[in-house]
Amino acid sequence: MDIEVLEGIFDANEKIARENEALFRDNGVLAMNLMASPGAGKTSLIANTLQLLKGRLRIGVIEGDIASSVDAEKLKVYEIPVVQINTGGACHLDAIMIRQALDHIDLGPLDLLIIENVGNLVCPAEFKLGESLRSMILSVAEGHDKPLKYPLMFSDSDVLVVNKTDLIGLSDFDMAELRDTVIRMNPDIIIFEVSCRTGDGLQAWADWLEKRARESIAGK
Amino acid sequence: MDIEVLEGIFDANEKIARENEALFRDNGVLAMNLMASPGAGKTSLIANTLQLLKGRLRIGVIEGDIASSVDAEKLKVYEIPVVQINTGGACHLDAIMIRQALDHIDLGPLDLLIIENVGNLVCPAEFKLGESLRSMILSVAEGHDKPLKYPLMFSDSDVLVVNKTDLIGLSDFDMAELRDTVIRMNPDIIIFEVSCRTGDGLQAWADWLEKRARESIAGK
Repeated sequence: MDIEVLEGIFDANEKIARENEALFRDNGVLAMNLMASPGAGKTSLIANTLQLLKGRLRIGVIEGDIASSVDAEKLKVYEIPVVQINTGGACHLDAIMIRQALDHIDLGPLDLLIIENVGNLVCPAEFKLGESLRSMILSVAEGHDKPLKYPLMFSDSDVLVVNKTDLIGLSDFDMAELRDTVIRMNPDIIIFEVSCRTGDGLQAWADWLEKRARESIAGK
Repeated sequence: MDIEVLEGIFDANEKIARENEALFRDNGVLAMNLMASPGAGKTSLIANTLQLLKGRLRIGVIEGDIASSVDAEKLKVYEIPVVQINTGGACHLDAIMIRQALDHIDLGPLDLLIIENVGNLVCPAEFKLGESLRSMILSVAEGHDKPLKYPLMFSDSDVLVVNKTDLIGLSDFDMAELRDTVIRMNPDIIIFEVSCRTGDGLQAWADWLEKRARESIAGK
C-alpha cells in the first residue's frame, strides 16, 4: 500500500518533470540541477560561476532550501533573476515546486538556469526536476568514501565537482581513490577539481558549462 | 491522502520507538542517536569516543548506511558489538530498523548504545528511534549558517558537537555566530567544540557522555 502511494508520487513527479523539460527545451535554456550535502559549496560554486560567465551567458537561479533565504540574498549582488523556494520541511525539490517557481522567472531571455537543490546527498537524486544536466558537488572535507555510502547520486549524475581541494593535505582525502570508485560506478561522469576559496579549477568548470549551454541553445 | 499515509507511517514509527525506549530503559542502556551530514565526522567521533571510554563504559554501536559496511569495518578494531544496518536507499533510520538490529545485539551487558544515523541533516530528525539522547555533529567545513537552513535538527537535538575546529582559520566559519543562532533556536542545547583530527575537545565530550550514561544506569 505504501509502495503504491510512493509510486504514485514518483509517477506524478515524472510527468511534471517531462513538461518542465519541454519548456526548457522550447526556450533554449540549459537547466542544471545542482545537488550536494549541506555546506559542500553549492552557493559558492554558483556565485563563482556567475562571476566567470558574466556577459557571456544569461543566467537565472532557483534556490531551494527548507527554510530561510540566506542563499538567495548572497546572489543579489549579481543582479540576475533569482527565485527562492522554501520547501517547508521537505528534504528535496520536486518538479511541481520548479513549475511553480517558473511562474516567477522569464525563461525567454535565459541561456542557463541553475537549480540549487536542498542540501542532501540522498533524496534529491530520486526526484527529476526536468533538468538536462545533473550535477553534484562533493567537498574534500566529506571524505573520499562517500560514493560507496550514497551510491545513487554518484551513479546518476552527469558531472561531479570536487570542491575544497585546498583542504587536501589537511585530511586523508585520496583523490585517486575517489576517481576510481566514481568512474567504476559511472564511467561517463565528468569530474572537475576546484576550490571555491582559492579559485583553482573554476575556469575549466565555467568554460565547460558555457560550452554545454551553447550546445543547448544551438539545439533549440 | 498522501498526508494521511505519512501520518500513519509516523504513528507506527512513534509506537515502535516507545517500545525500543522501554527496552533500553529496562536494560539500563543509554541510547544515543547520532545525526549529521555526510562526512561531518560521525564515525570518527564514535571511534574517538570508544578509545577514550575504553574500560570505563561497555559500549555497542549500530551503524546506519544506505549501502556498504565501510563504517562498521572501521570500528572492528575496538572489539565491541557492532551491527550494520543497510537501509537499501532510505535516507534515514527508523524505529523498526533499530528493533530488527536489536535481535543481533545483547543489551544486557551494555551501558551505552551509539546509533550512527544515515548522513543527512534533514530526514533523520523526523524519525525517533527510541533514543533518550539526540546528538548531532556540524562540521566547520559546512559553515555557520546551517541552523537557519536545516532548523529541525538543530532545534530538536540535546547536544551539538562542532567538529573539525582545526579548519576554523581556513574558512569564514564564525563560532560565535553559530552559537548565537543555535541557542536562540534551542536554549537548552549543549555544545562541544572538537577536532577528531587533532583530538582537541574530545576529552570533555567523552567525560560528559560517560556522566550521562552513568545517570541512565543509576536510573535503571
